[in-house]
Amino acid sequence: MTSKESSHTSEKLSPPITDDGPEQLSDRLAWSRIRQTLREPFAEFFGTFILIMFGDGVVAQVMLSDDQKGSYQSISWGWGLGVMLGVYSGGASGGHLNPAVTLANCVFRKFPWRKFPIYALAQVLGAFCASGIVYANYKSAIDVYEGGAHIRTVPGYSDTATAGIFCTYPAVFMTRTGQFFSEFIASVLLMFCIFALQGDSRLGTGAGNFTPLCLFFLFFGIGACFGWETGYGINLARDFGPRLMSFFLGYGKEVWTASNYYFWIPMVAPFFGCLFGGLLYDTFIFTGESPINTPWMGLRRLVVPDRKAKVDS
Amino acid sequence: MTSKESSHTSEKLSPPITDDGPEQLSDRLAWSRIRQTLREPFAEFFGTFILIMFGDGVVAQVMLSDDQKGSYQSISWGWGLGVMLGVYSGGASGGHLNPAVTLANCVFRKFPWRKFPIYALAQVLGAFCASGIVYANYKSAIDVYEGGAHIRTVPGYSDTATAGIFCTYPAVFMTRTGQFFSEFIASVLLMFCIFALQGDSRLGTGAGNFTPLCLFFLFFGIGACFGWETGYGINLARDFGPRLMSFFLGYGKEVWTASNYYFWIPMVAPFFGCLFGGLLYDTFIFTGESPINTPWMGLRRLVVPDRKAKVDS
Amino acid sequence: MTSKESSHTSEKLSPPITDDGPEQLSDRLAWSRIRQTLREPFAEFFGTFILIMFGDGVVAQVMLSDDQKGSYQSISWGWGLGVMLGVYSGGASGGHLNPAVTLANCVFRKFPWRKFPIYALAQVLGAFCASGIVYANYKSAIDVYEGGAHIRTVPGYSDTATAGIFCTYPAVFMTRTGQFFSEFIASVLLMFCIFALQGDSRLGTGAGNFTPLCLFFLFFGIGACFGWETGYGINLARDFGPRLMSFFLGYGKEVWTASNYYFWIPMVAPFFGCLFGGLLYDTFIFTGESPINTPWMGLRRLVVPDRKAKVDS
Amino acid sequence: MTSKESSHTSEKLSPPITDDGPEQLSDRLAWSRIRQTLREPFAEFFGTFILIMFGDGVVAQVMLSDDQKGSYQSISWGWGLGVMLGVYSGGASGGHLNPAVTLANCVFRKFPWRKFPIYALAQVLGAFCASGIVYANYKSAIDVYEGGAHIRTVPGYSDTATAGIFCTYPAVFMTRTGQFFSEFIASVLLMFCIFALQGDSRLGTGAGNFTPLCLFFLFFGIGACFGWETGYGINLARDFGPRLMSFFLGYGKEVWTASNYYFWIPMVAPFFGCLFGGLLYDTFIFTGESPINTPWMGLRRLVVPDRKAKVDS
Repeated sequence: MTSKESSHTSEKLSPPITDDGPEQLSDRLAWSRIRQTLREPFAEFFGTFILIMFGDGVVAQVMLSDDQKGSYQSISWGWGLGVMLGVYSGGASGGHLNPAVTLANCVFRKFPWRKFPIYALAQVLGAFCASGIVYANYKSAIDVYEGGAHIRTVPGYSDTATAGIFCTYPAVFMTRTGQFFSEFIASVLLMFCIFALQGDSRLGTGAGNFTPLCLFFLFFGIGACFGWETGYGINLARDFGPRLMSFFLGYGKEVWTASNYYFWIPMVAPFFGCLFGGLLYDTFIFTGESPINTPWMGLRRLVVPDRKAKVDS
Repeated sequence: MTSKESSHTSEKLSPPITDDGPEQLSDRLAWSRIRQTLREPFAEFFGTFILIMFGDGVVAQVMLSDDQKGSYQSISWGWGLGVMLGVYSGGASGGHLNPAVTLANCVFRKFPWRKFPIYALAQVLGAFCASGIVYANYKSAIDVYEGGAHIRTVPGYSDTATAGIFCTYPAVFMTRTGQFFSEFIASVLLMFCIFALQGDSRLGTGAGNFTPLCLFFLFFGIGACFGWETGYGINLARDFGPRLMSFFLGYGKEVWTASNYYFWIPMVAPFFGCLFGGLLYDTFIFTGESPINTPWMGLRRLVVPDRKAKVDS
Repeated sequence: MTSKESSHTSEKLSPPITDDGPEQLSDRLAWSRIRQTLREPFAEFFGTFILIMFGDGVVAQVMLSDDQKGSYQSISWGWGLGVMLGVYSGGASGGHLNPAVTLANCVFRKFPWRKFPIYALAQVLGAFCASGIVYANYKSAIDVYEGGAHIRTVPGYSDTATAGIFCTYPAVFMTRTGQFFSEFIASVLLMFCIFALQGDSRLGTGAGNFTPLCLFFLFFGIGACFGWETGYGINLARDFGPRLMSFFLGYGKEVWTASNYYFWIPMVAPFFGCLFGGLLYDTFIFTGESPINTPWMGLRRLVVPDRKAKVDS
Repeated sequence: MTSKESSHTSEKLSPPITDDGPEQLSDRLAWSRIRQTLREPFAEFFGTFILIMFGDGVVAQVMLSDDQKGSYQSISWGWGLGVMLGVYSGGASGGHLNPAVTLANCVFRKFPWRKFPIYALAQVLGAFCASGIVYANYKSAIDVYEGGAHIRTVPGYSDTATAGIFCTYPAVFMTRTGQFFSEFIASVLLMFCIFALQGDSRLGTGAGNFTPLCLFFLFFGIGACFGWETGYGINLARDFGPRLMSFFLGYGKEVWTASNYYFWIPMVAPFFGCLFGGLLYDTFIFTGESPINTPWMGLRRLVVPDRKAKVDS
């Protein structure tokens, strides 16, 4: 999960590639060169892809089978293990799977800023593609559930809405403030616990290579404890990518307008939440290298990120 | 989980801090000095904070959604993973998260007595704050459930009582003795198993860095096996902190008077239970350094704890 | 879990005890000498004690709360984590918690025969005591459920029977052969998988210190896959101990006569099952030291176990 | 799980066998020689055996008890832990338990081609035998459920069909394309994640000896997210072996003809799915030795597999 590790490994890897036999050959192949360059975006793409395959898949199965093939608890399970397996698949890039997590790593863990846009794009694309495949897989079931091959509806506009399979729609009783607050809190917990699981080498805490397993529990927990009100999007890629796909799939502009243009909240709130969560952890617990532990609380670095980033990589 | 580790790490840390670059600078900052001093209370505060966020959060979600977004089993899950993630977050201080556990560590594991009040205070505060945030997050849902923005009721006084989200209220059929006994037994299991999971270096037993994961199972188990009668408070901080918050939030004096002033039982019973559980483990299983394995069963030490504590730290 | 480890550790321990300070003192204390001798029985006692506390506890909670505070799945969870925590608690003795497992270890893993009766006794006593405490804890709830403080009934003799909390009673449609077969199969799986989890040092397989965690899954699995027909006693201590307790508690002689004297099946079948399971594993998978891999398939050893046992210890 | 490991260990083992005492003797015994030769088929046989015992067992218990002794979630649990325990039992051979996984290892991980037929046969036989024992164990319950000792029916031909205990039958609304696609997708996820869990030594990713535990989550996930439409056969051995057994047990030719000869889909689709999943992983993530990283994308090797295989072993 640590961006440091990941960026290091990618350094470590480049040299050996050239000396040992098969790789040397493969270096002459166009594909291997492309791969070399795009390893991290690929890893983020597939990590998020796996996350959404399991996450949207479990929602589809539970909803479309009318809770016969699962329950709300299975949904928490599905998202939890989606994260776990996604992080294993995306290990090469640190397995962020979430732009807000990448951002927090840039701010608090010296993750190179220039990588942020690439990561975010790869994550959104991965979620976008996965949700399309989930749709293809459950198309017949959706037709049956919606009552017709060309009927696609959004929660709040019909009782057999299936758009909730792909992205989150808030509970009806929620106020706008409540929606934002719920996403914010969940994101704070997310980032605080991710940092806590990565732990603090100076204190010998953290979950080491249990981390992906513990992330299962973390996401299960967020789903079981804060998943009702807004469906815990807490991730721009996870929510926006599939929402876009559902729009293209013909769910209509309601995917954007539903609940008074709710769609932007799970895109924006997680960034604030993850930054605040990281700030809390670094301010009160973390003793390693963090802007919080440097003079001016590292604010100078925020002013001139580019130079800093160059130094890192 | 071991207090020994934690106290040691905090010693180990002080020296290096001063020599390496960024830290040296940061030592000049007021905040870093404060942090240095308050690391352990902070860790306990946030550990308990995380525990209650997930624990009270899952009860809120299950209760307020009328079991649609979870079941009793999810509640056991929520408390279990709350402990697990809380212990990871509070690793720097040993992750007690429970005054009774801290006490047992003072008595059986040479944890410095002078730290007990600080730990207990940090734990209660952490639980207090977390429950407030859970309330803020579920306010709208509570209004709907209670049937009005200003209606806040306690179990036994209405059918839509929501005070049970924050702290425990016993089942109606329980006798006073039964209530105490149930909390006592659960606390005995708690402490006995915590010591068993920490294991015995001389016997090469214990769960090592699985411990937090196993604590998930331990708490799930206590909830699934002994959670019905009294809601397994088994923790002064977990029960009193949120109860106080719910009082301030306007649930009325019933939070104290309910079930004939039940509130003091989950505050007192855990101390007896954890001491007895630790006594059992050290008497029959533990072979390491413990007052039980010293002459007079370490009673002399209990008489003059202060001097002893000084020696430790 | 391995008896070899356990017996070794107990050897390893004896010498150091005498040299280091506190222990040296404690050696002069009567209690420490007793403990030294009885360490393994104590460990088995408390391991089985923990197992039954959680196992019988979860059945009590689910049954008495009419499935409101749990479901059949929680019962599988409870037994699974009871085993897991029991094995951690009983690590000093190898954590058999089951006479049939101890027997299989004597036959296939050179566990000293002379220890068998002591282990079996400690296991039965542990289960016996734990079930008594579970009864004490749920007494009021049992009174409510049975409909009176002096009514205690056995499955098949009333609709509100609570004897099933303590020990197993088969489903009505089962034939005698079916009952035995079901217990036999479950025990075969039990022993085969325990040996598989301990693994084979020569093949580098096995779960290492994951073993107790995997045992959770193993018991959850036996409960979820073969737990319906006979309630998977698969353990003389687990079934006979609590049955005896329930008899003393006034459930009447029906605890023995129910289902045509079913009670002896979970006492006898596990021994056959575990021996056969161990035989399968050692015959087809195991490459380490096992009578199967010695001439005469180790039958000679079975003839003169005592001498062999002496050699071991 | 890696075929490389397994084949290596089997090499590593042969020499030492001959030098140390007990083994030297046993080498003179016919059985030990047979075992030596057949170690890997035996491991695959018992690994698949354990998988089906738990997998078919849980379906039987949940179905025959009318969801009283479990739910759809328990079924996902049962298959998941069946895989986990099966992989531990079959560790000596790499624990493939699935011909499609073995094939993918041949193509992408240099697993000797000549071992493929032996593995596949052992896997089918293991599943075949296990399903027979599950039938024997639940015979009385099946009689009750079907309504007679000689009535055995297949889903779609009666409301009390029990053939679904042994092998998979698709949901009625599925089109032929949908059936194939669903099995294909699930197999892609299966192989991609297995490779991801084995990880990439050059990137320091993967789950190490957590792998079997993570496989539990992987299979739980496939069951919870893609298990509804076709019952996730995704394994020739798991589906064909028990189907054959159910045919011999008198479920009639409907086991083949049901859903318009569905039976061949879970036999064929997994091979395509696993190959594609492995291709994806090696093309975009894997940096180790793989045909994808060699010139001609290793196509030459596919042309002359035999020579290559000889080189390997």
